Amino acid sequence: MTVQDLESLALRMVDGRLELLDQTGLPTEQRWLACAAVDDVLDAIGRLAVRGAPLIGVAAALLVAVRAQAGDGRAELEQAIVRLRAARPTAVNLAHAMDRLRRALQADDWHGRLVGEALAIFKEDVALCDAIAEHGAALIAPGERILTHCNTGGLATAGVGTALGVIRRAHDQGKNPQVWVDETRPLLQGGRLTAWELEQLDIPYRLIVDSAAAAVMAAGECDRIIVGADRIAANGDFANKIGTYSLAVLAAHHDIPFFVAAPATTVDAACANGAAIPIEQRAAEEVHGVSGSVGSLRWSPTGAPVHNPAFDVTPAALVSGWILDSGVYDGRQVVAGAH
Amino acid sequence: MTVQDLESLALRMVDGRLELLDQTGLPTEQRWLACAAVDDVLDAIGRLAVRGAPLIGVAAALLVAVRAQAGDGRAELEQAIVRLRAARPTAVNLAHAMDRLRRALQADDWHGRLVGEALAIFKEDVALCDAIAEHGAALIAPGERILTHCNTGGLATAGVGTALGVIRRAHDQGKNPQVWVDETRPLLQGGRLTAWELEQLDIPYRLIVDSAAAAVMAAGECDRIIVGADRIAANGDFANKIGTYSLAVLAAHHDIPFFVAAPATTVDAACANGAAIPIEQRAAEEVHGVSGSVGSLRWSPTGAPVHNPAFDVTPAALVSGWILDSGVYDGRQVVAGAH
Repeated sequence: MTVQDLESLALRMVDGRLELLDQTGLPTEQRWLACAAVDDVLDAIGRLAVRGAPLIGVAAALLVAVRAQAGDGRAELEQAIVRLRAARPTAVNLAHAMDRLRRALQADDWHGRLVGEALAIFKEDVALCDAIAEHGAALIAPGERILTHCNTGGLATAGVGTALGVIRRAHDQGKNPQVWVDETRPLLQGGRLTAWELEQLDIPYRLIVDSAAAAVMAAGECDRIIVGADRIAANGDFANKIGTYSLAVLAAHHDIPFFVAAPATTVDAACANGAAIPIEQRAAEEVHGVSGSVGSLRWSPTGAPVHNPAFDVTPAALVSGWILDSGVYDGRQVVAGAH
Repeated sequence: MTVQDLESLALRMVDGRLELLDQTGLPTEQRWLACAAVDDVLDAIGRLAVRGAPLIGVAAALLVAVRAQAGDGRAELEQAIVRLRAARPTAVNLAHAMDRLRRALQADDWHGRLVGEALAIFKEDVALCDAIAEHGAALIAPGERILTHCNTGGLATAGVGTALGVIRRAHDQGKNPQVWVDETRPLLQGGRLTAWELEQLDIPYRLIVDSAAAAVMAAGECDRIIVGADRIAANGDFANKIGTYSLAVLAAHHDIPFFVAAPATTVDAACANGAAIPIEQRAAEEVHGVSGSVGSLRWSPTGAPVHNPAFDVTPAALVSGWILDSGVYDGRQVVAGAH
């Protein structure tokens, strides 16, 4: 078995060669990185050229398949798996994908098994996104104006994405959704990536600063909010990109349905509630200005004290429904839905 | 009568010469612009080197006094007043200040009257801010953590400011307030100007992205919110920088006192309620990236559709109190308080 050709929005294989879309160039430049060696993928992960936990796992798995097809032996492949697994400790999907490849490498027919497993990891991610999209799109009425946050689409997964995948499926079904895109300070995944992705898909959208969402809701111009999730606790509380909780409170005040879309693997049954989810504090530099992908600019006083939580926690009471790959659930069902 | 020396945070007269702090250089550079001619002030207003409606009115008035002291005749001064009055049509304070100078110019002893009126305009703005600060600071308990939005301090007025003036007065009274500074996208008046101003005053603060305010409130780390106002309607509804309404909804959800601080001249008794306040849509470029004062950077797709309201309207029901220069009022008293 070999993997020759496959393609997603931000990852493709052409004649057995792996290429990743360099997301640091978006939206101004669409540059594909050829990845032939482990170091190529490690570098892409390190400088956020490839991002999104599911997509990172898929990219690393396919690079291992590429190395196997290039003739690397078992020892070399084992070392490649170990190095890739360590590239981003917080990405559960990456560790999970590498563990599956390591098990395949133990088999007598390891070559075919390894390549087959890498391909399966790609295909499973696509299928997971498709299932979420299908369940979510069934909720959407024609012409809905849907607000989303951060980037949860084809740039973060091998498939159509999670929250953005739902919107895309509704669009493909002819429901003509219109999207409000929050720019998502400080890293601007909305303004940079979601805006770009919606343009590629020809889905109508309008970009707003994060603090304008409330005024849009008050004006009666938002029918639904759909966001992704980084971790869902057993009681339905969930952590997601900073600003998500703010949208949930505003949605409740304006009586607007608020949905979460995520794969069932995001549900952490061992985590009783949102208070048990650790919240990462990130560097002050992110709030001092903008830096990295599109250039660098600083507008705050040097050394300005910053509070920069990367995520916030939304209590289950503010959520209208949880869209998983297995169906749409309420807070009491969400753990059962993940099994 | 002559005006020789006076000083505020962003405006000063030294030996009869007018200088304005160039706010486009903040926070990185503190550069004073010498203004000897009408064109110098027109240029400073045009490129936002001087901003804040009250401060613009004061700067223009003092420039007319400078020209009178330099020996300009009545005809020249009349022309200067006309040109300055047109520099920013939306700034009511500017038109009001110029109309006062024009009336002074009609008097037989016009020279002294004109210079005296310019000085009075400066002093009145300082006094207005002081009165607001005094009434507001009386509400503050020791150690309060106060959240504010945009810039409402000494960079926008000739005095201590409005909402930020209240915080400054509480600090001067030894109440040790700590400030949460919203960065205030898209023009970043919080991250650029309020952060800088609080550093000058040695008042402890922490900068957050606008969407993190909700998480700060949920964590129990915010005791009060104080914002400014651009216009207050007869029923107490008010318009202010985009994001203010969002904070008001979040404050109500978390049971946090939410106050507005503004001069009585901000109350528009002819405006029945918030629905009658027109909301200005600003350029898409502001949301596409950052440009102007600190450099230019664009991160969104070229031509990305943008919804960019400069202000939003907060209904009176979400406001705990209105801090005017004449006292602190509730929604039913606010029009009476302005007289």
